[in-house]
Amino acid sequence: MVGEDYLWATQLGRLMSVERSTLLLSADDVAACLDMGEAIAAVREAFVAYHAKRAVMPPKSYINLPEHGGDVRSMPAKVGTDALSVKWICSHPKNPERHGLPTVIGSLILSDPATGWPLAVMDATLLTAYRTGAAAAVASDTLARRDATTLGIIGAGTQAAYQIAAISHVRKLTRVTIADARIESTQRLVEALTKRAPHLDVRAGTLEEAAGEDIVCTLTPVHTPIVKRDWIGHGVHINALGADAAGKQELEVDILRDAVIVVDDWEQATHSGEINVAMAAADLRPEHVRGTLGAILDGALPGRSDDEEITIFDSTGLAIQDTAVAKAVYARAVRDGLGTPVDLVNTARVPFDAVLTQMRT
Amino acid sequence: MVGEDYLWATQLGRLMSVERSTLLLSADDVAACLDMGEAIAAVREAFVAYHAKRAVMPPKSYINLPEHGGDVRSMPAKVGTDALSVKWICSHPKNPERHGLPTVIGSLILSDPATGWPLAVMDATLLTAYRTGAAAAVASDTLARRDATTLGIIGAGTQAAYQIAAISHVRKLTRVTIADARIESTQRLVEALTKRAPHLDVRAGTLEEAAGEDIVCTLTPVHTPIVKRDWIGHGVHINALGADAAGKQELEVDILRDAVIVVDDWEQATHSGEINVAMAAADLRPEHVRGTLGAILDGALPGRSDDEEITIFDSTGLAIQDTAVAKAVYARAVRDGLGTPVDLVNTARVPFDAVLTQMRT
Repeated sequence: MVGEDYLWATQLGRLMSVERSTLLLSADDVAACLDMGEAIAAVREAFVAYHAKRAVMPPKSYINLPEHGGDVRSMPAKVGTDALSVKWICSHPKNPERHGLPTVIGSLILSDPATGWPLAVMDATLLTAYRTGAAAAVASDTLARRDATTLGIIGAGTQAAYQIAAISHVRKLTRVTIADARIESTQRLVEALTKRAPHLDVRAGTLEEAAGEDIVCTLTPVHTPIVKRDWIGHGVHINALGADAAGKQELEVDILRDAVIVVDDWEQATHSGEINVAMAAADLRPEHVRGTLGAILDGALPGRSDDEEITIFDSTGLAIQDTAVAKAVYARAVRDGLGTPVDLVNTARVPFDAVLTQMRT
Repeated sequence: MVGEDYLWATQLGRLMSVERSTLLLSADDVAACLDMGEAIAAVREAFVAYHAKRAVMPPKSYINLPEHGGDVRSMPAKVGTDALSVKWICSHPKNPERHGLPTVIGSLILSDPATGWPLAVMDATLLTAYRTGAAAAVASDTLARRDATTLGIIGAGTQAAYQIAAISHVRKLTRVTIADARIESTQRLVEALTKRAPHLDVRAGTLEEAAGEDIVCTLTPVHTPIVKRDWIGHGVHINALGADAAGKQELEVDILRDAVIVVDDWEQATHSGEINVAMAAADLRPEHVRGTLGAILDGALPGRSDDEEITIFDSTGLAIQDTAVAKAVYARAVRDGLGTPVDLVNTARVPFDAVLTQMRT
């Protein structure tokens, strides 16, 4: 009993200190708090909330930094009643070569909607990778055939492993085929995956072989389609994640025309998602697009109707995903005592007249 | 010489540790780094840079939180080549009463445009008060008569002291008249100011008396004009700061029509500044507005042409002001060794396959 009382007092003390401070969560702290199952649940909930108007998401703001070959985005959102955040994240493809830094560097501020208090400041780089994988998992769970067991990965960059880990949560995978011209990256991933999941049939393959699997994830930054219509069989589900800017596209337009297309968000998909080029060229019309994943999850639109349909999830990445996963990370950090409480905001009111010391008289 | 070498080595060590980390600047740290003279210089430079297209500022994003009677805004901007930030700031008027917290709580992330690295995370509450005062000072310096010596303050809330302190940097003040129906707030400010600047003639006055001074600052959240045309004499300069949302206005429309109007930003002023109601009602036309303060500072538009004109600066508060002042705060913190370097981002690449431990197999 003494032990329990002590534990309770300690946790209460910690909770109170956390509530009067801001929890700093380093990249390592966030890594310790991220759980793919939780991320998938949080992202699913966020999509539903957004469709049901229980989430608010202003458009992403971009600041282009052409002199550095990169850009930075601010992504504010609110999900449900208690999750509110802004993510501030750069994409600087020249970082690795020029500065020995990652391409993507991001931070996120999670706030209490009731007061605006910053509950946490956290690294958002790994969180972004998780929420992107989680979105593909939610889409695959919703749109892929029930009996889908094989996964094709086109593009063996960092996101590939997140896709595989995430989708393993929603379908019982038996084979993964990875296609990328960069043989080293492909081989590294094949080896790591083989080691981690010895029961899986893991192989490096051609684009056509990867595109022939039940679920296909496209993860490349190309401007000219690399996935041909002929390669896509009946009943395949495609997660199209590579296109994230006007002009980018990975799938031949005939695939889009023959498929049920589901977007994460109309605005973003039309401007920067897989469908942006075809829509701008009027090769694809709005009526070709079924609607949002949230609408299907919320029951407002039908999903896959039979085992023959090709389905496509056009994922651009939404701020609501970040907010929902950040809230899950914060909850786990508080629960497990991770992170460093810091004084960022001063609860005491600043003396209203302190600034008068700065008068020029 | 030994001393200098040691100092140099210490500073270099600090600089390097700062460059590989993120500087956490608490409200107290920021308070110690804010200097009104520097803030004014930074804001002036930001306005010029924005006009000269050396600054980038996407529109503010709002998330309304009606269930808490407040809102939160994300304000990203880049100024010049080396200042890049996002401010995330709430306005919760019920905070003091409900939670014992300030109405405005904000945080800011300052990043290196070259890499996206978060250089600093800082409290932005006091910074916001400074940059708002600084904008009025820049406008007063640009638009008020050279021989202006008296200042009228309408609204004795927190911002009043910042206006007085800031404007004292650009004109030699001899008298300050403060008008507010809240007698206690007014008296507190009169007393504090009298103590701080004994040479000043400081008095509580009526709205009409305050509006009769050479420079007038309006700082109230009213929706019906409280400043009458008859009260405004020839040659007066008005800083209109209270209106920050559609529907708010402090000045009778005849004042607007008879004055040279200068805005901080066309978009924001039209939507939420002092001119928003008159513009929406077509009581005021775009040609009534001379242009932006930045255009005048940059020499592209004329300012005051004679000592008879009434001039108005419609200030809505711009993200570029925050970015510029945050950069000045950061520079001073690095110079003076303030703040706490923390590990937020991990410079080491996350092992690409670590997430595979989260596979469901």
